Amino acid sequence: MAGIKVHGIPTSTATARVLAALYEKGLQFELVNVKLHEGEHKKEPFLSINPFGQVPGFNDGDLTLFESRAITQYISGNYASNGTELIPKDSKKGAVVLTWIEVESHHFDPVAMKLVFEFCLKPLFGLGDADPAVVEKSEADLGQVLDIYEKRLSGSKYLGGDSFSLADLHHLPVLGYLLATPSKKLFESRPHVNAWVGDIIARPSWAKVLALRK
Amino acid sequence: MAGIKVHGIPTSTATARVLAALYEKGLQFELVNVKLHEGEHKKEPFLSINPFGQVPGFNDGDLTLFESRAITQYISGNYASNGTELIPKDSKKGAVVLTWIEVESHHFDPVAMKLVFEFCLKPLFGLGDADPAVVEKSEADLGQVLDIYEKRLSGSKYLGGDSFSLADLHHLPVLGYLLATPSKKLFESRPHVNAWVGDIIARPSWAKVLALRK
Repeated sequence: MAGIKVHGIPTSTATARVLAALYEKGLQFELVNVKLHEGEHKKEPFLSINPFGQVPGFNDGDLTLFESRAITQYISGNYASNGTELIPKDSKKGAVVLTWIEVESHHFDPVAMKLVFEFCLKPLFGLGDADPAVVEKSEADLGQVLDIYEKRLSGSKYLGGDSFSLADLHHLPVLGYLLATPSKKLFESRPHVNAWVGDIIARPSWAKVLALRK
Repeated sequence: MAGIKVHGIPTSTATARVLAALYEKGLQFELVNVKLHEGEHKKEPFLSINPFGQVPGFNDGDLTLFESRAITQYISGNYASNGTELIPKDSKKGAVVLTWIEVESHHFDPVAMKLVFEFCLKPLFGLGDADPAVVEKSEADLGQVLDIYEKRLSGSKYLGGDSFSLADLHHLPVLGYLLATPSKKLFESRPHVNAWVGDIIARPSWAKVLALRK
């Protein structure tokens, strides 16, 4: 039971979120491949890790967790003194990071994932071309979110404050996909957002996640 | 700037989530009414608290936060020694609570809020009757989530473990509404879910939130 295990695949955005956090902390782990195309995530033994049947699952010794953003918070807190500080120890600074973690989760991710689905997942699953009407609506919605990010990042180097944190890291997997689509213009056209994207996407932790996909 | 202020209205599910946490902690606070019907949440000065224009906003002295689940986590951590322990200090037990906080946020709330909209908000805003097709689909989806809750609660008194925690508390505002709708059958028909609902809805903190609505 010893050690950290991540059950998932590195192309999954939620799995990649956890992997990036582990690399930021410099922690050793085993990646246990879950064969999604064979439906392994909808059967035992995976359902005993996550009854909702979604990757990633996570073990640290006898601890079992699921939900990527809970796992990354555990990693940040339990391994606070390893590698990058991902949630500030100061409770007020930490609370601002938590706020922007929620923003990613409730404002950025739902709309950004619609674009990932149109541009990246539909071709992958043979579901046809991106629907122009869905793309237009989703880009308008994402643009509104990014307008707020632009204002935030004009006064703060990172979303959660002066330092890179989990609030930034949680964006990496979806950003990584969207930057390879026409929607990248939404990021490039906003100077502070563009600088922030360039900064966080260049982190060595993210390069290591990408290397796992090869 | 001293003291805790909650900007919102007690009938808002997200505002009520924060109020319940403050009552669990026995903390004094000021509730600053935001006139949603006049659009105060979409204008300054509210947008300086939450640029996304949603209640609640929150101050604790010079700290400003938004997003209800970030605020409750701040309250739990910064006032750890007051009132009810809402997130266990032990990092592994705390991580299990965080996992079920994410479950509420990503699995329970989105589908449960569709039923709140159909049964509670549509009549309130003169938008007509509940759509039977939406209700049927949403009840089926919520039933699947509650099947997983039923299994979890057959082996654990509360979602996050042996003790009441933020993972349970976060459900109270939406539960409070759904128990007054035909969808209450989804909870009543599952014995462990039903016992859990009866337990958490009876907490004095929730009675105090309801009293604020009068």
